[in-house]
Amino acid sequence: MTKIIDPYGSELVQDYKKVVKDFGLQTFDSVNFPNPNKLMRRGVVFAGRDLQIISKCIREKKPFYALSGIMPTNQEIHLGTKLVVENLKYFQEQGAKTYILVADLEAQAARGVSLQEGRERALKFHIPAYIALGLDPKKTIFYFQSENREVVHFAYQAARKITLNEFKAIYGSADPGRIMSAVTQVGDILYPQFKERMPGIIPVGIDQDPHIRLTRDVVSRMKEKKFFSPGSLYHKYTPSLDGSVKMSKSKPESCITIPEDETAVKKKIMRAVSGGRPTLEEHRRLGAEVEKCMVFELLKQHLVEDDKELDDIYQDYKSGIMSAGEIKQIAVEKMINFMKDFNNKLLKARKQVDKLQFVKF
Amino acid sequence: MTKIIDPYGSELVQDYKKVVKDFGLQTFDSVNFPNPNKLMRRGVVFAGRDLQIISKCIREKKPFYALSGIMPTNQEIHLGTKLVVENLKYFQEQGAKTYILVADLEAQAARGVSLQEGRERALKFHIPAYIALGLDPKKTIFYFQSENREVVHFAYQAARKITLNEFKAIYGSADPGRIMSAVTQVGDILYPQFKERMPGIIPVGIDQDPHIRLTRDVVSRMKEKKFFSPGSLYHKYTPSLDGSVKMSKSKPESCITIPEDETAVKKKIMRAVSGGRPTLEEHRRLGAEVEKCMVFELLKQHLVEDDKELDDIYQDYKSGIMSAGEIKQIAVEKMINFMKDFNNKLLKARKQVDKLQFVKF
Repeated sequence: MTKIIDPYGSELVQDYKKVVKDFGLQTFDSVNFPNPNKLMRRGVVFAGRDLQIISKCIREKKPFYALSGIMPTNQEIHLGTKLVVENLKYFQEQGAKTYILVADLEAQAARGVSLQEGRERALKFHIPAYIALGLDPKKTIFYFQSENREVVHFAYQAARKITLNEFKAIYGSADPGRIMSAVTQVGDILYPQFKERMPGIIPVGIDQDPHIRLTRDVVSRMKEKKFFSPGSLYHKYTPSLDGSVKMSKSKPESCITIPEDETAVKKKIMRAVSGGRPTLEEHRRLGAEVEKCMVFELLKQHLVEDDKELDDIYQDYKSGIMSAGEIKQIAVEKMINFMKDFNNKLLKARKQVDKLQFVKF
Repeated sequence: MTKIIDPYGSELVQDYKKVVKDFGLQTFDSVNFPNPNKLMRRGVVFAGRDLQIISKCIREKKPFYALSGIMPTNQEIHLGTKLVVENLKYFQEQGAKTYILVADLEAQAARGVSLQEGRERALKFHIPAYIALGLDPKKTIFYFQSENREVVHFAYQAARKITLNEFKAIYGSADPGRIMSAVTQVGDILYPQFKERMPGIIPVGIDQDPHIRLTRDVVSRMKEKKFFSPGSLYHKYTPSLDGSVKMSKSKPESCITIPEDETAVKKKIMRAVSGGRPTLEEHRRLGAEVEKCMVFELLKQHLVEDDKELDDIYQDYKSGIMSAGEIKQIAVEKMINFMKDFNNKLLKARKQVDKLQFVKF
């Protein structure tokens, strides 16, 4: 039986190779993307669907799109979202038409956030945060689900194309609110193709694969529309600081959110599972178990841009020259700087948001 | 086990008393409505929900609403729809704010009718037909589901309030398209209360009761919104001319639709089950079995406005003075006149539709 990954309350995905096999994904390294970003170079991005089509669009400068959604629930974002934005930024820089939708209808259906509340949160925090993380607002098309009549109308058509049993097979369960959310997401994923037929790619965490599969199923049953099946790009989770596979708000002491204040950053990283040895003597002699080090993961995924710098840290830590306390200190400083930089950029981005044009229907 | 009435593909409802009991309805005769129309006087209207609230609104001239939907599938309407419009007309004349929505999203989700197609059919035929059957367009608020953002957004909220199992218990089955349709209908039924809290009544065939129940369930779980639970008014089916309980397009030779040409009307009524005896001699001696006469049902439900006239026909037929051929001849003439009158009024009404204002959001 295929393991079911539930995007609404994820199970741990410990064996990414198994996921690739079970879900019929392509491994990322099977495709040669131009100018890979650090996540791609470091195996954080590990798989996808229809990647060769997107790679070809980039190389041949043909139109394609990249799309992601904002769920306007809390006034903070997850490090996993930072990975998504980094990949979106990559595609934007490689020429993708970039779409960001605010999933306000979904937030209402799935979490009970009113449309007005969702709107305010998105304008005040989430959209500026995406800009602060590197998205170019001038090259990005933003919309609210609740204002995109075409997406919602399409959701009614998509609903006709799937049965309840298929839905259950993909999502593991089905309830009316979830079904409405999911078919609306199908509309979002295909929306850029409503006016211009072109391939698209959705960079997401692997737990979001069900939405991609559902959309691909719907596309295969609407042959007359001639949609491209959406491609997807999957990154691994940012692990929890306690060493478990996915960082999660359910364990706040092991989870860093954006923004996060200095004291909390310091406290959390200093307590993280580090791969250091029981004694300094042993550490110097055997070197760190870097593969178990959650702090190195933070550096690799989020804090060190330069490959040489990361490699130096790796070598020093692996060989025992660098202690667990030292690698943590590096991570703390870098994370605090990141948060400062983010907060500054967020303030600037808020002013840009006032000038944004949202697509309405 | 409660018998499930499926509004999408009805089972026969032969024992209306049992339906009243099983569904927990009020009988219509338990409430004293002012100025009852012929359907109310003749037991065609037989039950409802929260009828006393509406009766009180009428008597005390308090605000209430009546609402019905048009499913823009074919370019013809069913005699059952004529009963709905007659009851809507009654409530409109008794002071109800009257709403007619075009269920174009539902027609798309359930039947695959494109929004444009649905819109055109509604404007060209269904709305004028409702006006031709007696609705006052100046006193009626019309809208298209696809243009009513508030209804659609509410559907997402309503979806959160029901589980899949409840949905199955009410409808007998569940698939994504049906769920989307049903929660959208919940939005429609409550829509008049979004701005003004007031009781409302939905005149429908008994097979539509599931939508009323679903809406009442949703209302009971949104206490903070302080909606009135929708009332409803149920009429019996117009029976099939072959004697079965419900006239249906699946047996076209026993089904009269509006419009219908003279030849077809004549042919169908002349072949109808009449309650006449095998020989004229026997008929004169024993009288007709009026309770088995589908032609008398047509007269009672659709063709004879005056109670005295209907009663005279009943007495003459019952006593055998009037033959089956004669009662059929009366029905044929009246039906042909009805169709002529309808066609004339339809042409006039089309001109009125051009001037209608549709509510948009």
